[in-house]
Amino acid sequence: MNTLIPDEFTFPRPMLIQIPSGGEKHIELVGAPHTVSMKSGCISLQQGESMELHNSGEHEELLITLSGRGEFRSPGMDPLSIHSGCILYNPPHTAHEVINTGDQVLRYIYVVSKVS
Amino acid sequence: MNTLIPDEFTFPRPMLIQIPSGGEKHIELVGAPHTVSMKSGCISLQQGESMELHNSGEHEELLITLSGRGEFRSPGMDPLSIHSGCILYNPPHTAHEVINTGDQVLRYIYVVSKVS
Repeated sequence: MNTLIPDEFTFPRPMLIQIPSGGEKHIELVGAPHTVSMKSGCISLQQGESMELHNSGEHEELLITLSGRGEFRSPGMDPLSIHSGCILYNPPHTAHEVINTGDQVLRYIYVVSKVS
Repeated sequence: MNTLIPDEFTFPRPMLIQIPSGGEKHIELVGAPHTVSMKSGCISLQQGESMELHNSGEHEELLITLSGRGEFRSPGMDPLSIHSGCILYNPPHTAHEVINTGDQVLRYIYVVSKVS
């Protein structure tokens, strides 16, 4: 072991992260310094609730729907229907919002990473 | 429209991708040129089946379990139990294998992106 290394947590290593079952709108699951660039979290939207228009900037993003139904809306394009059994890719610098259009909680995992 | 641009698909844009319901071991879902660096796919492992020891090299990786149970094994560390309701982060340059240790199909989404 290199004792000059002050903090082992600055070295990313395999990590298992439980997704909390609670209904909080946004739960961060993993990110720096436990990763290099990736960040991931869980979004839970109640009926009619939305992640308002935002932009991931220099990050590209993948959404993996766990349950419920919703719409991904980005200015200038038709809405995309999201539901379990699909993933959605969102490129950098793309404004978008996600709204729960179903009658159950819409739950999804997002994964973002910075583009070089 | 800029007619000097030969191929609109070289510009990543939001994309919805259905996860095929079939039982193929590895299905690629999205990657370049539809993304900048991210790549994602779906792995389906039958009882006892595994993704043999491999290394994602300069890519960091997130696994999102959709169904079933399994183990993530990386040399030099205890196995990690994966199942729906958890995600797993795997850093670059980390050898690992995933094995279905349950009695149902183990299905998960992987997301990888190159670190700069």
